[in-house]
This record gives sequence, structure tokens and C-alpha cells, in this order.
Amino acid sequence: MLEIVDLSRKFALFSEHWRPKIVGELNGSYVKLVKLKGEFVWHRHEQEDELFLVIKGSLVIKLHDADLELGKGQFVVIPRGVEHMPVAAGEVHVMLLEPKSTINTGDAPGERTADAEWI
Amino acid sequence: MLEIVDLSRKFALFSEHWRPKIVGELNGSYVKLVKLKGEFVWHRHEQEDELFLVIKGSLVIKLHDADLELGKGQFVVIPRGVEHMPVAAGEVHVMLLEPKSTINTGDAPGERTADAEWI
Repeated sequence: MLEIVDLSRKFALFSEHWRPKIVGELNGSYVKLVKLKGEFVWHRHEQEDELFLVIKGSLVIKLHDADLELGKGQFVVIPRGVEHMPVAAGEVHVMLLEPKSTINTGDAPGERTADAEWI
Repeated sequence: MLEIVDLSRKFALFSEHWRPKIVGELNGSYVKLVKLKGEFVWHRHEQEDELFLVIKGSLVIKLHDADLELGKGQFVVIPRGVEHMPVAAGEVHVMLLEPKSTINTGDAPGERTADAEWI
């Protein structure tokens, strides 16, 4: 039986910020859910394009030449190689889509680096 | 400048059913939006997993051994090779994610086959 994934129910299963959870996989990519609050770190993914779809709240993704402001029901694809930093003034719920190989901190590993786990 | 894609605004740009529109691409896949109403055709995608995320309305995806009922904010991944038929009693708005090579009718080409176009 294939799983029907309810985004609200999955978001209710965790509370920590900046630690993506895996909720689906297809074609070598994972669908992940993450709660964001505050500033992340500047980083890029050399080989992976990354989709951010805002499910709740509002999110700023800083680029070096622009600030992208996303609200509920909006998404952006950050192409591989583009340095970015997510910033969330309040808590934001985000659905991510990215290759399985993607590490959350990209080329900037450190204390914010987190392994994604299935929920 | 990267495009921020607003799902509601994109859905407002078209009205026809069963003709997916491309609104994003990443890692060799397209993000598509489609409006569904009525029954589609039984088909499978031999090489492609396909994600259906319901944005508005409710959708049934018939499989040979189950009916999957999805409401707003729910998704399912139909694995490659699994024959399925979407059925929408009322109009449903769906976000799809699938490889660029995916044809809407999979292995069952016919009058419902449609090329996806960017909007």
C-alpha cells in the first residue's frame, strides 16, 4: 500500500528547527519537511538544484544579489552552485525537494549540518 | 533573478483539465500544475516515479488493489510501473513532480495525451 502523506500531520511529529525530515522519495530525490526559524548559514550545493515550497509562514532566501521573499503557497528553485542563506523571522514550515545526496549545509559543513531521517 | 512561483496565480492562468503546465524544473524533473475533473485513463510510467500533491479539492487515484483518496495538503508518490487512474469528482488542483521525459498518459497514448507547456 502506498503511503498518503499528510503534510500537517507530518509537521506535527517534530518541533526542532533546521533538521529536515524525509517524507517521500522519487527518482533519486527526497521530499523533505523542515521547520525554520532564525538565520541559517551561507552555503551552496554544487551538484543539486533545491526546491523550497512554503507551507506555512514566510521565508526569506538571501542571495548575493537579491532577497527572495516567499509566502505560503509559493516556491522557488535554487539552482546548483548558487550561494544562498534562508532566514525566517518567525517559524516557517517548508517542503524541500532535492537529490538524496544533498546535505543541508552544502559546501559549508559545521554545527548546523544535520542528517535527515525518515518520519 | 530567480522566479518565485505562486501556485494560486499560476492556477489562475488556465482553466482546461488534464493538460499539465510546467512551472519549474530541477535536477532533470519538472514541477507541473494540472487541473483535473472526471476520469482519466489507466496508465503507467515505466521509468518514472510521479508525485501528486493536492493543492485544492480532493482526488482519488485508483490502483488495481486500492483507491487512494487525497485531500488538500496530501501527496502520494506513484512508483514507476504501477498502473493508476486519477479520478476527480469535482475539480482538483494538483502539483506534479516527475522527470522531464514523462508523458501524461504514460504507456497509454491517445486523445488524452497532451504536451506540457511552460506558463
